[in-house]
Amino acid sequence: MTSTFTDRTAAYKVIGTRPIRHDGVDKVTGRAKYGADINLPGLLHGKVLRSPHAHARIKSIDTSRAESHPDVKAVATSADLAPSPAVGKDVVPGQNTSDNVMARGKVLYRGHAVAAIAAASPDVAEEALSLIDVEYQVLPAVFDVEDAMKPGAPILHEGMKTASEPEAAPNGTNVADHEQYRLGDPEKGFAEADIVLEREYRTKTVHQGYIEPQNGTAWWAPDGQLTVWSSSQGHFGIREQLAKVLGTSVSTIKVVPMEIGGGFGGKLQAYLEPVAAVLSKKSGRPVKMTMSRIEVLEATGPTCGSYVRVKIGVTNDGRITGAQAYFAFEAGAFPGSPVGGAAAAIFAPYNIANVQLDGYDVVDNKPRTGAYRAPGAPIAALAVETLVDEIAERLGMDPIEFRLLNAAREGDRRADGVMNDRIGAVEVLEAVKSHPHYSAPLNGKNRGRGVALGFCRNNSGMSSVVVNVLADGKVSLVEGSVDIGGSRTVIAQHVAEVLGIPIEDVIPQVADTEMVGFTSITGGSGVAFKTGWTAYEAARDVAGQMVRRASRIWEVPEDQVEFQDGAVQHTTDPELRMTFKELAGMLGGTGGPIVGRASLNPPGSVGSYTANIVDLEVDPETGKVDLLRYTAFQDVGRAIHPSYVEGQIQGGTAQGIGWALTEEYVMSDDGHMMNSSFLDYRMPTSLDLPMIEPVIVEVPNPNHPFGVKGVGEANICPPLPAIANALYDAIGVRFHRLPMSPEAVVRALHEKNGG
Amino acid sequence: MTSTFTDRTAAYKVIGTRPIRHDGVDKVTGRAKYGADINLPGLLHGKVLRSPHAHARIKSIDTSRAESHPDVKAVATSADLAPSPAVGKDVVPGQNTSDNVMARGKVLYRGHAVAAIAAASPDVAEEALSLIDVEYQVLPAVFDVEDAMKPGAPILHEGMKTASEPEAAPNGTNVADHEQYRLGDPEKGFAEADIVLEREYRTKTVHQGYIEPQNGTAWWAPDGQLTVWSSSQGHFGIREQLAKVLGTSVSTIKVVPMEIGGGFGGKLQAYLEPVAAVLSKKSGRPVKMTMSRIEVLEATGPTCGSYVRVKIGVTNDGRITGAQAYFAFEAGAFPGSPVGGAAAAIFAPYNIANVQLDGYDVVDNKPRTGAYRAPGAPIAALAVETLVDEIAERLGMDPIEFRLLNAAREGDRRADGVMNDRIGAVEVLEAVKSHPHYSAPLNGKNRGRGVALGFCRNNSGMSSVVVNVLADGKVSLVEGSVDIGGSRTVIAQHVAEVLGIPIEDVIPQVADTEMVGFTSITGGSGVAFKTGWTAYEAARDVAGQMVRRASRIWEVPEDQVEFQDGAVQHTTDPELRMTFKELAGMLGGTGGPIVGRASLNPPGSVGSYTANIVDLEVDPETGKVDLLRYTAFQDVGRAIHPSYVEGQIQGGTAQGIGWALTEEYVMSDDGHMMNSSFLDYRMPTSLDLPMIEPVIVEVPNPNHPFGVKGVGEANICPPLPAIANALYDAIGVRFHRLPMSPEAVVRALHEKNGG
Repeated sequence: MTSTFTDRTAAYKVIGTRPIRHDGVDKVTGRAKYGADINLPGLLHGKVLRSPHAHARIKSIDTSRAESHPDVKAVATSADLAPSPAVGKDVVPGQNTSDNVMARGKVLYRGHAVAAIAAASPDVAEEALSLIDVEYQVLPAVFDVEDAMKPGAPILHEGMKTASEPEAAPNGTNVADHEQYRLGDPEKGFAEADIVLEREYRTKTVHQGYIEPQNGTAWWAPDGQLTVWSSSQGHFGIREQLAKVLGTSVSTIKVVPMEIGGGFGGKLQAYLEPVAAVLSKKSGRPVKMTMSRIEVLEATGPTCGSYVRVKIGVTNDGRITGAQAYFAFEAGAFPGSPVGGAAAAIFAPYNIANVQLDGYDVVDNKPRTGAYRAPGAPIAALAVETLVDEIAERLGMDPIEFRLLNAAREGDRRADGVMNDRIGAVEVLEAVKSHPHYSAPLNGKNRGRGVALGFCRNNSGMSSVVVNVLADGKVSLVEGSVDIGGSRTVIAQHVAEVLGIPIEDVIPQVADTEMVGFTSITGGSGVAFKTGWTAYEAARDVAGQMVRRASRIWEVPEDQVEFQDGAVQHTTDPELRMTFKELAGMLGGTGGPIVGRASLNPPGSVGSYTANIVDLEVDPETGKVDLLRYTAFQDVGRAIHPSYVEGQIQGGTAQGIGWALTEEYVMSDDGHMMNSSFLDYRMPTSLDLPMIEPVIVEVPNPNHPFGVKGVGEANICPPLPAIANALYDAIGVRFHRLPMSPEAVVRALHEKNGG
Repeated sequence: MTSTFTDRTAAYKVIGTRPIRHDGVDKVTGRAKYGADINLPGLLHGKVLRSPHAHARIKSIDTSRAESHPDVKAVATSADLAPSPAVGKDVVPGQNTSDNVMARGKVLYRGHAVAAIAAASPDVAEEALSLIDVEYQVLPAVFDVEDAMKPGAPILHEGMKTASEPEAAPNGTNVADHEQYRLGDPEKGFAEADIVLEREYRTKTVHQGYIEPQNGTAWWAPDGQLTVWSSSQGHFGIREQLAKVLGTSVSTIKVVPMEIGGGFGGKLQAYLEPVAAVLSKKSGRPVKMTMSRIEVLEATGPTCGSYVRVKIGVTNDGRITGAQAYFAFEAGAFPGSPVGGAAAAIFAPYNIANVQLDGYDVVDNKPRTGAYRAPGAPIAALAVETLVDEIAERLGMDPIEFRLLNAAREGDRRADGVMNDRIGAVEVLEAVKSHPHYSAPLNGKNRGRGVALGFCRNNSGMSSVVVNVLADGKVSLVEGSVDIGGSRTVIAQHVAEVLGIPIEDVIPQVADTEMVGFTSITGGSGVAFKTGWTAYEAARDVAGQMVRRASRIWEVPEDQVEFQDGAVQHTTDPELRMTFKELAGMLGGTGGPIVGRASLNPPGSVGSYTANIVDLEVDPETGKVDLLRYTAFQDVGRAIHPSYVEGQIQGGTAQGIGWALTEEYVMSDDGHMMNSSFLDYRMPTSLDLPMIEPVIVEVPNPNHPFGVKGVGEANICPPLPAIANALYDAIGVRFHRLPMSPEAVVRALHEKNGG
């Protein structure tokens, strides 16, 4: 941290504007390179043999027929990878996920990779998979978090103990961890309450549903240097994982970031890259691998199914006196469900003195879950915000007034120990309250309106930026953050603002792992925050060097020169002034080029608050829910590029709507996903959605030069409860289970009508 | 300049060692990417229509038949380029050479580009060239510098005046410039002499003879952003030329440096790149162009043919009292022959009080000359060093003793005004004198030994370097200098030495024009000097940041921490010590990654001295010259990587040998090159050469942190005169004309024998 900040909103020239994205033309003309565009001399194609069973012991893998086949250039199994360490609980990028990359000893879910083959074409490779002979001993399996926690459930990892309570199940369990947080005295809180309500909630596994399937190309040269091209949310993270899974060191690996066709948390993990690397090492040639849609759905990392129980106590005048939550999350085959994210989010919108949280991370025979936009938080929001709606109704209070009364504010402490900084919960609620949508009439049968809050903490991480001054007065910006949502332009705006130059004069580049310093993942709503800030510092480094050059040219002391409004100028002599462009053209004669650089690891803001107002109409015959009007609010600190902020709000809302209404992994009894295509795994399309009106709330973050918090995640949370609350308003049924699909709505109406 | 230097030779751990080159495996396995390896979706191929005449007016170019042909995707002519400015004299990279890229109004040499076509394949493009109708009015032409200077010679650029003497030829001339330098009083010098000798010399056009032909691929997107992939000696220089020739600005162009298959000065100019850019703009698709060998020889930039006259006066005791040189260089079609380089070099080995130099830059109807290793200096060396040999013989002095008596030393001033810094002329001569080769017996008929000196000034330029610290203690080095002779490793050695880490722990990368700050060309023997020094400063920036991190971790003041021998340590407490690797693993928690950077524009050293001893044998029947033994000496300041220094010395010597003995453009009367293939343009192969023993002389440069001067060029100079002197020793004939081919030797022997 090298700067202190003062808010100078009024003076911003670039921050808060909506320039055209630098990579726009590349993306619409096909010049932007995605993983699928990679082609290399002698390129081979790899395909993965996957488990047909949800749970089985691998008695043997015989690759000899494949290896001796002339069309097969290389065969890989888990024997070629460094073994995973003992099963632990962290889902951090960089963890050794070797046993998930290719199964060792057991397969733990249908689709679990068992072996792979490289051949001259994808078709030949796929056909040759049948030459690998695997003998399985099929084991009983479990596909649901509640079943997996039951005594006698099939155990995935024999002898696994609960990390926090190793004595609890000495003979093995599927409960990988139990996290507990307590604040105040929950029992006392409930005793003080006039009303205490407790409800159960259940959600299904859902997928991020990015358009571009996972892909990776690797070329492992005989000198041990491995180059990998892949579409990910963080090539430095992929490099770390590769080093661990391959048993090598990061400096032997270069990862080249390709453009990414959607991630939403699902492209943090390396699935194919290590396999392609092994196949390349064995064949001596570059190897490319791409997943089919079925593989994406069956073998990457969706988010968890869950069981949640929430209890809240309130006084008759509407004050929450105590709250408790129990949540058990399906981690899939390996531990790592977002228990921590849910714990951070679940009561974050409210200031509650007495809280207890118990979160369980539970493995079962489904694909290992990964991160998904605001990990854990949507499930938490569904539970708390529908229960809060019910409580407000019981109290006869306006649901926004009830929330305002209990809203979290700066200085409040949360159950997970975090102290709120300059959060925007109240400002978001005020924005909802004063929005015309909230007071608009909504008439008609089977129509209802719902509101709900959402929250997600904002992460940060390390970031590195270099800014090179070009002779014509433009600058190139070298950054390490993969651009998913327009961050090239957003980061460039930081540079342009500092240097007082037009945004078009900043040329942003996302560099590979050897061209730029370490930069952490594009995730956790952190890129605009951390890399924007780092770019701000790198631009200031440039400005400082400009001042020194000018002092040399003018032969005046440095402290008589200042950089302001895109120019160096003498503090007292108005004749001594040069614009950025003028000075940029004179660098050769004054000591050489100017290269600005910065690297940071700042702590993120504690989080971003969101809210939704939704109007909908239910067709009681089919159960179909039509969204009539949708308004989505979010405090983002400062909207650097409002269009992209709006896009994030709309996109997250759309994903939340899909999760609420239609998306789920439909599993057969033996653990097959029955709807593994985008025809059957039903995400909302533009035809399913109304215009989602985004409302940006700006409560600037005092710990970022331009007040940025983070915008990417919290917006996915409120649709789940807001739609449930609107459905209650429309048809008088409270839903406690997702998705609220036509089938579920029809069944609920049937039950309500005593059917 | 941010550092002062002390010589600490004894302590070097990496400087002076011979590590394996970082890019070695890439280059032997095919992973290194050359221009020819580029392939892009929708790639078109471009071909150039070239002038069949050496001099003609273009009466019309009709491209309509081509444009309407379905196979032709785009047609380009000079109308698509920004016009060149009025003909000037500088051959600097970045000059607008538009009229040489495609002829405007006139063609000035056979092979001059007239138009170009893009099509789906090179063959289709080539065939379609016949659809372009060009009407020429053929003009008389001139192919020799002496003819071109004669009154009444055909004038290439109508109305062109001599830049320094515009009144000299008011109606137009082919003499583009006349440079004159005087030191002392030459007439007085000659008056003081006991012996004054004057001789004439003539050399032919020779080519750099790189293996990889010129190539370039361009993709001009609809947003105006142009990306160019090309093999060059400086992608920043190519970018500047493109901006000028295309009439755009550098920041709209990204040039990606591909590996380069030889340059030697010939790959500084953009020939194909601007044409490919225009064809891409017009077709909307990427366009690739590659020259054939004939095109390389006929239409790129060989070095000049010349006429030189040198006069030297000496006293009977061997002191040079005065010297004079007249030299006229063929610039080819546009001005820019290396008159300045010759002026700087011609008497540089000697301290002469009275000197006059007159250099003429003369255009004629041959391809525009380009830079070639030590531009101008080999021709200067041929003249002076053979005349010096004759003088020493006349005086009965040992040729090395004569040179030592007159050798240039630090503080002497040269004719071109430059003051000698810590040069190594004397040390090189002493090394020759004491080398066993110099005193070894050489018996046998038709055998002879020759010695000669050489000199070339060393250039520098702007350079930018970034050093990123990786978590495992290695560093990535981002530089902008194209690697021709192993400079990745040489620059990495600077970083490794400063940081006290193994050379294998530095991962060097040559970055494109947007990924790294401006870096001037790989030429002028400047890369190890300027980019090495810049890397040294960037590494020191890293070390300084490491010190600050350690002071933060240990909670001690910064001035109590020092960086030494690859570790940070407390100045007094030996317990407080962390190796580079240890600290590199802790950066996240102490403020983020470390990114070091530097940019410089230091003045180069005044130059590098070389010498040769050569033994040879003449076959009087065929005129063939066999080299029996060859020793090449060079003062390089400090040999950072002795193997690459030796490689430079051997390579330059081999090129000098070719120039001396076999290479020449054989021209027909109407200006066609008659030997435009590597079968007929006869460069020495390994079978033609003895082992060239390199002798490194180190007279460290006090103005570089490790004492580097420059090694790439001066070594090409001495072979020309050393072989001429050895031939005289062998057969008693002094040669004043190159090449000293078998035909020339036979003719000389015939004349000598009164034939």
